[in-house]
Amino acid sequence: MVTARVPLTPHPDRLLPVGGAVRPIARRLYAAVRDLPIISPHGHVDARILRDDTPFTDPTALFIQPDHYVTRLLHAGGVALDRLGVGEGPLPEERAREAWRLFCANWPLFRGTPVQYWLASELAGIFGVTDRPDTADPDALYDQIAAQLSDVRNRPRALLDRFGITFLATTDDPADPLDAHAALAADPSVRTRVAPTFRPDRYLEVAGAGWVDAVKNLGAVAGVDTGHYDGYLAALEQRRRYFVAHGAVSADHGHADAAAIPLERAEAARLYAQALAGEVTAAAATAFRRHMIFEMARMSCEDGLVMTLHPGVYRNHHPATLAAFGPDTGHDIPTTVEFTRALRPLLERFGTHPNLHLVLFTVDPTVYAREIGPLAGFYPSLYAGVPWWFLDNPAAIRHFHESVTEIAGFGRLSGFIDDTRAFCSIPARHDMARRLDAGYLAGLVAAHRLDEDEALDTLTGLVRAQPRKVFKL
Amino acid sequence: MVTARVPLTPHPDRLLPVGGAVRPIARRLYAAVRDLPIISPHGHVDARILRDDTPFTDPTALFIQPDHYVTRLLHAGGVALDRLGVGEGPLPEERAREAWRLFCANWPLFRGTPVQYWLASELAGIFGVTDRPDTADPDALYDQIAAQLSDVRNRPRALLDRFGITFLATTDDPADPLDAHAALAADPSVRTRVAPTFRPDRYLEVAGAGWVDAVKNLGAVAGVDTGHYDGYLAALEQRRRYFVAHGAVSADHGHADAAAIPLERAEAARLYAQALAGEVTAAAATAFRRHMIFEMARMSCEDGLVMTLHPGVYRNHHPATLAAFGPDTGHDIPTTVEFTRALRPLLERFGTHPNLHLVLFTVDPTVYAREIGPLAGFYPSLYAGVPWWFLDNPAAIRHFHESVTEIAGFGRLSGFIDDTRAFCSIPARHDMARRLDAGYLAGLVAAHRLDEDEALDTLTGLVRAQPRKVFKL
Amino acid sequence: MVTARVPLTPHPDRLLPVGGAVRPIARRLYAAVRDLPIISPHGHVDARILRDDTPFTDPTALFIQPDHYVTRLLHAGGVALDRLGVGEGPLPEERAREAWRLFCANWPLFRGTPVQYWLASELAGIFGVTDRPDTADPDALYDQIAAQLSDVRNRPRALLDRFGITFLATTDDPADPLDAHAALAADPSVRTRVAPTFRPDRYLEVAGAGWVDAVKNLGAVAGVDTGHYDGYLAALEQRRRYFVAHGAVSADHGHADAAAIPLERAEAARLYAQALAGEVTAAAATAFRRHMIFEMARMSCEDGLVMTLHPGVYRNHHPATLAAFGPDTGHDIPTTVEFTRALRPLLERFGTHPNLHLVLFTVDPTVYAREIGPLAGFYPSLYAGVPWWFLDNPAAIRHFHESVTEIAGFGRLSGFIDDTRAFCSIPARHDMARRLDAGYLAGLVAAHRLDEDEALDTLTGLVRAQPRKVFKL
Repeated sequence: MVTARVPLTPHPDRLLPVGGAVRPIARRLYAAVRDLPIISPHGHVDARILRDDTPFTDPTALFIQPDHYVTRLLHAGGVALDRLGVGEGPLPEERAREAWRLFCANWPLFRGTPVQYWLASELAGIFGVTDRPDTADPDALYDQIAAQLSDVRNRPRALLDRFGITFLATTDDPADPLDAHAALAADPSVRTRVAPTFRPDRYLEVAGAGWVDAVKNLGAVAGVDTGHYDGYLAALEQRRRYFVAHGAVSADHGHADAAAIPLERAEAARLYAQALAGEVTAAAATAFRRHMIFEMARMSCEDGLVMTLHPGVYRNHHPATLAAFGPDTGHDIPTTVEFTRALRPLLERFGTHPNLHLVLFTVDPTVYAREIGPLAGFYPSLYAGVPWWFLDNPAAIRHFHESVTEIAGFGRLSGFIDDTRAFCSIPARHDMARRLDAGYLAGLVAAHRLDEDEALDTLTGLVRAQPRKVFKL
Repeated sequence: MVTARVPLTPHPDRLLPVGGAVRPIARRLYAAVRDLPIISPHGHVDARILRDDTPFTDPTALFIQPDHYVTRLLHAGGVALDRLGVGEGPLPEERAREAWRLFCANWPLFRGTPVQYWLASELAGIFGVTDRPDTADPDALYDQIAAQLSDVRNRPRALLDRFGITFLATTDDPADPLDAHAALAADPSVRTRVAPTFRPDRYLEVAGAGWVDAVKNLGAVAGVDTGHYDGYLAALEQRRRYFVAHGAVSADHGHADAAAIPLERAEAARLYAQALAGEVTAAAATAFRRHMIFEMARMSCEDGLVMTLHPGVYRNHHPATLAAFGPDTGHDIPTTVEFTRALRPLLERFGTHPNLHLVLFTVDPTVYAREIGPLAGFYPSLYAGVPWWFLDNPAAIRHFHESVTEIAGFGRLSGFIDDTRAFCSIPARHDMARRLDAGYLAGLVAAHRLDEDEALDTLTGLVRAQPRKVFKL
Repeated sequence: MVTARVPLTPHPDRLLPVGGAVRPIARRLYAAVRDLPIISPHGHVDARILRDDTPFTDPTALFIQPDHYVTRLLHAGGVALDRLGVGEGPLPEERAREAWRLFCANWPLFRGTPVQYWLASELAGIFGVTDRPDTADPDALYDQIAAQLSDVRNRPRALLDRFGITFLATTDDPADPLDAHAALAADPSVRTRVAPTFRPDRYLEVAGAGWVDAVKNLGAVAGVDTGHYDGYLAALEQRRRYFVAHGAVSADHGHADAAAIPLERAEAARLYAQALAGEVTAAAATAFRRHMIFEMARMSCEDGLVMTLHPGVYRNHHPATLAAFGPDTGHDIPTTVEFTRALRPLLERFGTHPNLHLVLFTVDPTVYAREIGPLAGFYPSLYAGVPWWFLDNPAAIRHFHESVTEIAGFGRLSGFIDDTRAFCSIPARHDMARRLDAGYLAGLVAAHRLDEDEALDTLTGLVRAQPRKVFKL
């Protein structure tokens, strides 16, 4: 273990290609987009922290507790999650400091991952940290950051401005009153457009725990009787309209698979009634959910919400961790995904509908070349979501370009999506994407596959025009 | 968007590795094969255009209408297929010009894809185009190319010579009289050997539309009664011999999966009778087809036709496009493929048969390292087909080498296959492969894994000896 | 074909990255680990050749006959396995020479594979061969190596010392008396720790040929009545303890899939009784084996043996070759593998148990990013086995780092595993891994993702500390 202090100085050329001929091209391309505003069409920041502009309490609450990227790697390295305050609110100072010390001491666990890359960018770029955490005095580092967090310039809204975020989508329950979003929209001092995202997963999983109460409540919020299938559909449609009226641009869906298979109306109504009665089988629940994904596409054609799909994750793989610390604590594990057959009925009906924008995300990278590239290379409604979650690293992003872009071109990409719960990582993640895209394009220029003006136009398009087009901003 | 004219000048070093130490090696290797004749053992050129030597009518008929690579990307970018004349014959001039204008204006949609790379090579290399299409006057460009198409030096046969194509395989229906091939073979002015390929897919899919009439017609052509299973087998055998007599070297098979599972003769005869009576189930049709793939391997051992397999494509994914524009219009979408179990019965019986050459193609790249490399690294009959279709791009070709060659060596590869319907893309595609193979081999030399004489011998082998050996030329 | 002699001189920089900025970093990193001792926690050397220290008889017996990497590529290239003495003991000199001539003449078949790389390292590094085999006089080469094999300095134990191997695990049947291991442990002149590995596969496959006799014999060896399920469990537990007492550190499991699904004790006992009576169905045998994998994990928690899993290989794909030459003759072919669902019950019960170390190997590389990386990035018990077998090549190893390390960091890797039956390839394989890991880490340094001190600490950790930690040495 290193003991002498080692400086933490993110290099201006970091992540750019190393080769002599490519780097200067990449530098020029990156320089053109480095300071462009950030558009974040999908993520997990809570609108209430922006509305309330509550100061972050301490470094642990900011960098460790909410970020399952950090806590899962520490857990794998032998640090129990309770020592990190996972699933808890702000910790008493001594516990927060102890978690921070663990974080610093275990900094080498993050080597080679994008997590270390982002954290280094954030610590140095936002808080002026100059020592590599594993070589620093962790308590001094804690004090240094904590002091800055109490500064008004580091409150959430100030950071939003400082990060240059012009559009930020949150992820929200369909029954959410969206009052935080309304307050932010009504406040002229907030220059960022903060949009909700309609995330109806639990209302579509009729065998899920609490579903009966959830749809009952949804009906109450929507002012519609969800005691029968037509009311359920009407409630969903009503809440989608409510979200649209509050600035939402997309509806987001994450289920076990991507299948969209319509049922006859009577059959759907029958299964719905069974579900309300608590008598639905697992197979029927799956059939109903697949039907509802089809219905969601129909509604997207009607109300214009962009539809994003990210299937194929085994949620809460370790039940004991779920029980002790809640969901989204680092043990959602990918499985194989299939789109070609799963989406065929949906695409048959809506694939060339002018109102549909369907963005496919995956954590199974085998579908990039095999399915997403070919589908996005034909259907005008279908876009390839850039790599996220387990695939948000430099190698996977290059693999994505080599798989999808080579087949479908740059015009079929979603633009960068950060998908993060770690507020301070937003600029680091977008900056990483800009560097990697600049590097990939520079490689095409160096191989004489693109002219540099084409590369520049493509890169600025990926940052600015493409997310606006795909997410209808 | 760029407005000033930008020159279109394919660089001599294009696609070669960029690194300082590797490029000179790659240049030397590439220079040794750049001008070698082209062997094209599998493709989709129509022999009749060569027999008739009909001039190409216009740039749209040459570059856009027949090439689903081009039209699918334009379609994904929002251009309706009817505006491009997909599925139609030569267009009236104004429509052809309008399609050409769309093609030029949407040139940026092709960025980063091999389609743009090939088109640029063709436009500059064959027709002397000097302006990048999106920056050119599209009508002037149209006129420039159209004028050359009327020149006798740009008729199909002249181009065949100019391209240096010494062997060209077409893809043909087993009932085809092969008169075009016979005429070409009888014409001493034709220096290219134009060979038919036996493609019996629709005769093996007994539940397919029109199958009953097709086998009846096949019997008529073969002079055999196909009213029973033995006659059906005899008709196929007879037509294979007819193809062999007309110069065919391979039989090509593209079905939903790769399974080859023999049935007892009586069971096969029973299913055949059911099929003729229109009473076959989907499951029985699948069983029969899998049996027939096994039978095709047996026939290959007997008559020597190389067997090529390319399973795992969901054909005509968008029914409305099929109905309006026909098949092969850009919406065949890959699915997962499996070879290890699927081919075991076939390989158990014929895997070491000296007459069998079995070439496996895939559009699911996950099988390269997992199945094709290991299979080709043991069975002397089995060759790894190089990447084609959705995988015919620089990244996928490098991935193929890294997956298959590292496991099975260069001696187990098929040699380059262009598989194209776009006549003018043949030399561009072969040249791309030579550049990429030279670059890959140069990388091995630079990493001190191969001597340069070995790399040179390997590369010339891939271009010249390997396709001759694999396809028995 | 080359005829003049070409020198065989493995380059000091071989396999290191070529780029100007990266190579010097890689050289410095590699130099720091080049001469570190070798730890080999999993392989297939026979302990008896070490106990007996029998001289290798001839070059063919050393390099060709036992190495299915070599023989499968020659077989694919058209050389029948009987000409290579596969499955036979030492050959008469004339046959051994003839096999050696075939090996030399077919040296080009190995181009581009790691097999050629290892062989070149071994021939030059251990035996001072100076001519590339395909350009050498094969008989002179044979004589040169044969002469050295009779030298006492090239006996197995001397080579073990010369190779710097401090720990070597063999793979052994649970009924093995381990007398060879005991003799080696008792001999103070043996400085390498030679440890057995518990490999119970055939005892868990209750429908396998010879299973009834095998468990009967196991009971006899363990002194336990295996006529009922409890005795069977006790026998396995007893033999595991026996292995532990003889220095074993791990138990190794290779079945068709990775599933670990516990049965009720009574159900397991019932299936066991059926199996003893020869009346078990295939489905029941699979259920029993999946149950037993769960039991093996339980036993690992109790006795501390590291559990290694490597599922997903279709064994003996070509029955005629199995019949003529036996198993492990180059026609085991990978299939798809799944871990996320398969291991969930095991990980639910034991995933955070402090005694469990579970190492996952695969020959299906699609699971690296999708499943192994995410699992190893959460469960403290679970480690990612480095690429082996078909994936033990430079490209696959880089892909592994890009897939697993980017997600889970370096701390979740197994350390290098050679898994070889070719004794002389052990140092070449470990050296290759050190070069590639140095190159990968140098790339991270050059991209400013790691400081060089971090890279150095990581690389030495991968060679020295990580295998000691993972395999509890």
